[in-house]
Amino acid sequence: MKILVLNCGSSSIKYQLIQVKSKSETKLMAKGQIERIGLTDSVLTHKPADKPKLAFVQSVPDHSVGINIILSTLTDANHGVIESLNEIAAAGHRVAHGGEYFKDSAIVTPLVKQQIENCFELAPLHNPANLKGILSIEKLLPTIPQVAVFDTSFHQTMPMETYLYAIPYKYYEEFRIRRYGFHGTSHKFVAQKACDMLGLEFEKSKIITCHIGNGASVTAIKDGKSFDTSMGFTPVDGLMMGTRCGAIDSGVVLYIMDKEGLTTQKANDLINKQSGLLGISGVSSDMRDVKGAAANGNEKAQLALRMFIARLKRFIGSYMAELEGADAIVFTGGIGENEDFIRKGACEGLEFMGVDFDNQANDGMREDAVISKPNSRVKVVVACTDEELVIAQDTFRLLRKRPE
Amino acid sequence: MKILVLNCGSSSIKYQLIQVKSKSETKLMAKGQIERIGLTDSVLTHKPADKPKLAFVQSVPDHSVGINIILSTLTDANHGVIESLNEIAAAGHRVAHGGEYFKDSAIVTPLVKQQIENCFELAPLHNPANLKGILSIEKLLPTIPQVAVFDTSFHQTMPMETYLYAIPYKYYEEFRIRRYGFHGTSHKFVAQKACDMLGLEFEKSKIITCHIGNGASVTAIKDGKSFDTSMGFTPVDGLMMGTRCGAIDSGVVLYIMDKEGLTTQKANDLINKQSGLLGISGVSSDMRDVKGAAANGNEKAQLALRMFIARLKRFIGSYMAELEGADAIVFTGGIGENEDFIRKGACEGLEFMGVDFDNQANDGMREDAVISKPNSRVKVVVACTDEELVIAQDTFRLLRKRPE
Repeated sequence: MKILVLNCGSSSIKYQLIQVKSKSETKLMAKGQIERIGLTDSVLTHKPADKPKLAFVQSVPDHSVGINIILSTLTDANHGVIESLNEIAAAGHRVAHGGEYFKDSAIVTPLVKQQIENCFELAPLHNPANLKGILSIEKLLPTIPQVAVFDTSFHQTMPMETYLYAIPYKYYEEFRIRRYGFHGTSHKFVAQKACDMLGLEFEKSKIITCHIGNGASVTAIKDGKSFDTSMGFTPVDGLMMGTRCGAIDSGVVLYIMDKEGLTTQKANDLINKQSGLLGISGVSSDMRDVKGAAANGNEKAQLALRMFIARLKRFIGSYMAELEGADAIVFTGGIGENEDFIRKGACEGLEFMGVDFDNQANDGMREDAVISKPNSRVKVVVACTDEELVIAQDTFRLLRKRPE
Repeated sequence: MKILVLNCGSSSIKYQLIQVKSKSETKLMAKGQIERIGLTDSVLTHKPADKPKLAFVQSVPDHSVGINIILSTLTDANHGVIESLNEIAAAGHRVAHGGEYFKDSAIVTPLVKQQIENCFELAPLHNPANLKGILSIEKLLPTIPQVAVFDTSFHQTMPMETYLYAIPYKYYEEFRIRRYGFHGTSHKFVAQKACDMLGLEFEKSKIITCHIGNGASVTAIKDGKSFDTSMGFTPVDGLMMGTRCGAIDSGVVLYIMDKEGLTTQKANDLINKQSGLLGISGVSSDMRDVKGAAANGNEKAQLALRMFIARLKRFIGSYMAELEGADAIVFTGGIGENEDFIRKGACEGLEFMGVDFDNQANDGMREDAVISKPNSRVKVVVACTDEELVIAQDTFRLLRKRPE
């Protein structure tokens, strides 16, 4: 089954064509993306699995045109990887927010589309673009089934005492304000992968997963279910990130609004786009740049790294307490997979709670590996994530068990 | 040395007259308070150590009049405890916010008064009242020295990576926005007391102190110094409290402001006065009421208690990680000293990090006691706080070492 995986952002589309033969047997056929949708100089890059990479500039006024170009490219005589669009059996979409509707991925139906739309207010930048992608495929490939895979659905198992905020209860009843959490696809995938690597049973294990990229979140997983996660109602909460502040005294935000006469929109911009690594270092939101500046003696960059690590370490401790111990701590995402000094900073000194970190194994590690000492009660693992693969697998799983 | 301890709020004054003979030898002579200052029916209650309690209603238009009434009461032929005001050797004041000026308590000078005033914006409800108290004593007892004891000063030892928020650095430079923390007097006092109880050296120990009353905060203390604390720039952050929400996705606050058209002041009211135990339970901000309702089957009250405990447990875990292990966890404050089920909920299941909680010792305990098992690597302690005593002791300490 060849599955087109789409991740539609407000001005971009990422895609992969993945052949899924069974749950564990998959093959990436091509991947690529279109950026700057809506402008006259949109850029498409396309990488077939066995052919050279391709890039070209073209006007892409909207998502539907963009997806049409992707479909043409996939079937192109020179750069394509399939002969006919008929070979595409299904499409799987990343959808940012499923609210409280979705506890799992879902085959797209009119009701599902309506529910995705109902969540526009919860994810105003992402859900409308995700739905555009679904509607475009409906138009262009009207016969294939589609599956929506939600960033939030894995976290729908959290108990009420971890997902509610301590504000008047009516805000949950009236506006559905609660912790939703994000990156669910990735947290679940790497937790399962780590269990496979360690010979643990996912449904009977306690795992802390650290998905650390430009956005970042930590999840406490108990018996295969998300028990707590650091992102909340919005993705601004929890860890310090590239441009997001993470956990902050909300009185601070109100104080700055008063001091500078900010609207709520400007305040949201401040905490989402100007904070985090960028806000403290003044250098960049990219960990590699901040690391470079710190190595060159930039004191604010050094401070930003210390803050980044201290906050991650605190979250690991808090979830260790909440889970009453854990079997494994898992690192993934661009930073989690590649930055050994972050993993080291977050895990060192935790022998008292059973974490015996292996500095040598960690050093320079950038692929799936165990980086705790053999006798460590809590294993520490690097597990590379692949959200597109999960979307393809979920699409395969749901469509295969569908009544004929 | 007889010391008048004053805690002036915006519409109240609490006082104690304490005789301090040495650092460890003190005697409470009288205590009391005036409430509803500014109204015509202000209420004074006065309790001499060895005489019956007294209460009367009187018009108290301002703090100066209030303190004058307190001084008259203390020297009153019937209810008083001293013969002449000359016996009062000094006054010690609780001052809410010392900003970054004060790393310790301070003898009041014109500069100190100016600095307390400079912090008005950081504690707009408390610091002006605290300064009024100081100025009133200056007027009424112009010859005695005064000492200011700050809620924040103990926390001035925090390292930058724990006190900075991950927002643009300029907000620290321009507005001094950072984590200050509060309840410092209490955290320091009970940590020292717990060390005395356990035979530990305060300056060489790692202690987590949980001050849990209507306001609540947790502090991580390393080698006698505050290393991190859960309240922040404002007292709204950290633990769930009677009416404060504690840690919350700040995106939630902005979302509610948009939804309901709230000003920043209304939003501050919401998170400070309508949230916490009150907001979730709908019953009360008082733990005893919520506990009672929960026992009677009120599900929201039960939920509020589960949330309260879960958040406390997470903070203990995060500070255990940050300190890389601890020697003791200390409970104090109205709830921390009296509610065994909260201590139990927060500490149970933490054997993996060395906490071996003693349910039997904890059961019904309401006074200074060790409530972990004898072999517990991390000791758990109930230590009753006494902030007025610390103010008297600090006043004594500073005045005794003053150059003659």
